[in-house]
Amino acid sequence: MKATAKAHTNIALIKYWGKRDESLILPMNNSLSLTLDGFYTETTVEFDDDLTEDVFYLNDEAVSGGEYNRVVSFLDRIRKQADKRRLHAEIRSVNHVPTAAGFASSASGFAALAAAGAKALGLQYSSQELSALTRQGSGSACRSVYGGFVEWEKGTKADGSDSYAVQVTAPGHWDIRVAAAVLSPDAKKVLSREGMKRTVNTSLFYTRWVESIPADLAAIKDGIMRKDFEKVGSIAEANCLRMHATTLAADPPFMYWQSTTLLIMEAVRAMRADGVPAYFTIDAGPNVKVLYLPEDEEAVQQRLRSVPGVQDVIVSKPGQGVTCM
Amino acid sequence: MKATAKAHTNIALIKYWGKRDESLILPMNNSLSLTLDGFYTETTVEFDDDLTEDVFYLNDEAVSGGEYNRVVSFLDRIRKQADKRRLHAEIRSVNHVPTAAGFASSASGFAALAAAGAKALGLQYSSQELSALTRQGSGSACRSVYGGFVEWEKGTKADGSDSYAVQVTAPGHWDIRVAAAVLSPDAKKVLSREGMKRTVNTSLFYTRWVESIPADLAAIKDGIMRKDFEKVGSIAEANCLRMHATTLAADPPFMYWQSTTLLIMEAVRAMRADGVPAYFTIDAGPNVKVLYLPEDEEAVQQRLRSVPGVQDVIVSKPGQGVTCM
Repeated sequence: MKATAKAHTNIALIKYWGKRDESLILPMNNSLSLTLDGFYTETTVEFDDDLTEDVFYLNDEAVSGGEYNRVVSFLDRIRKQADKRRLHAEIRSVNHVPTAAGFASSASGFAALAAAGAKALGLQYSSQELSALTRQGSGSACRSVYGGFVEWEKGTKADGSDSYAVQVTAPGHWDIRVAAAVLSPDAKKVLSREGMKRTVNTSLFYTRWVESIPADLAAIKDGIMRKDFEKVGSIAEANCLRMHATTLAADPPFMYWQSTTLLIMEAVRAMRADGVPAYFTIDAGPNVKVLYLPEDEEAVQQRLRSVPGVQDVIVSKPGQGVTCM
Repeated sequence: MKATAKAHTNIALIKYWGKRDESLILPMNNSLSLTLDGFYTETTVEFDDDLTEDVFYLNDEAVSGGEYNRVVSFLDRIRKQADKRRLHAEIRSVNHVPTAAGFASSASGFAALAAAGAKALGLQYSSQELSALTRQGSGSACRSVYGGFVEWEKGTKADGSDSYAVQVTAPGHWDIRVAAAVLSPDAKKVLSREGMKRTVNTSLFYTRWVESIPADLAAIKDGIMRKDFEKVGSIAEANCLRMHATTLAADPPFMYWQSTTLLIMEAVRAMRADGVPAYFTIDAGPNVKVLYLPEDEEAVQQRLRSVPGVQDVIVSKPGQGVTCM
């Protein structure tokens, strides 16, 4: 009745941007990510007959409120499948995902919670089943079930049973790196869920975004197969810009970028002009992640650290999928 | 055989973005602008039988090369209409349009050149005819023929004869102001014509941009009629963001914004949050213009001057159409 799992976060190279079903967390488009070694969550779930309610500790602090309720609701799904609806658990999570780097810790968090919770109740899941379960906690978390390059297939069924992530077949290991710039704390938070919803509902460009995904996916998968870094990077960068463009055509329009965001984008373009292949990608916030090759690690770190407003740079290699310990 | 004309530049509130005919300068969409008192060009054209070629002085310096050729080609159109193809001229232009503020001096420049050139050759033009002529020198210049709010009707004819600007009827004078932020000189220049063309040819969002214009135009003209500043400002701002969004979906994607651009956008949003109605608009470059009401002039100027990277702020009232002296 006790299990521990470790899951890494992931960075989307083809963005998940828009839900077709809010409660089941079903996406409008396929997405593709790289799981990252450097950022992870370790979670232990222990079910206990003596507990009268769930207790959730995040980094050794008891959590209540909305975050607690989200974890309990998610555990309810697992309890239901194991037919143990009345059993409560103690959940202990430790996040190694610095929020200032702009990674959603929900991705590694729900992947670890799903794996540990299911194992603690003796449920045997295939990776696809685990991914579909994880998706219901946090959409992009379903990709963290796997290591390396991962595609989240949006699926078409109303019940979401065909909406899960799968491994992208790649010819052996490919060591590409991701640098996350940590912004100054005055970087304001912006509505990520809200923004996604407003874009789906009002952006004049949103349909075109959805239509543009299959071509991006085919091209980036071809790039991954060939280990063509410039192809993978340039498609990821273009996809990110196109995603952010949809917010500018929402009603009312909005944007996630801040001035530091632009300075980093400019630094990345300047590196390319200097012959260093580096590409940026940006999720629903001001933070920037930079893709680069191992031989350029020193140059990329130095360049990014020199950007005003960047406090730190955290680098990562490709990471593994969720593991139970 | 000698005439002098003065024309003001204008700022588009609904952007001209994309040509359907490169050589005749015919636009893909209607646009709407405000002519600005603070920025203008004065041009004297004197035809002289003794001249063996055109001479062109800009701010008292002789001009050659591409800029010279563009002026000569434009005068050729006027000479042709007057049936005086072999007559040469001395053209003296003085620009009161600081380039660092990011206004295209071509708008006021070609409007003044058209009016002075036509008058010097004794051609009698209606405002519409003058506007259609001016358009062939520089697209947005056709709007500078009129004062106040002006709409450039794209027209539908292949020869461009129905593509000219018209006055937007407004109920009396409306004193709304425009502040132009002058950026530090390290603000890089970006391809404006090139960018427009690349967007038309490759942006996945471009068709939607064109489709979105009629609703923007109807709404902003309604706002002008009612002197509803918030309506006019918010539509202009949304239109500008949508225009820039099309560049992010071009292949390859590109952007005109720099970090200072974003800082100014943030300052404008902060002013609104503080109860000062102010709205930004941005042409194909990093510079930002801010629309505001006369009573907020002090507050707006101060706020913009406090933005790092902004060297100066130049304010303007609505201006008149082209005048001959």
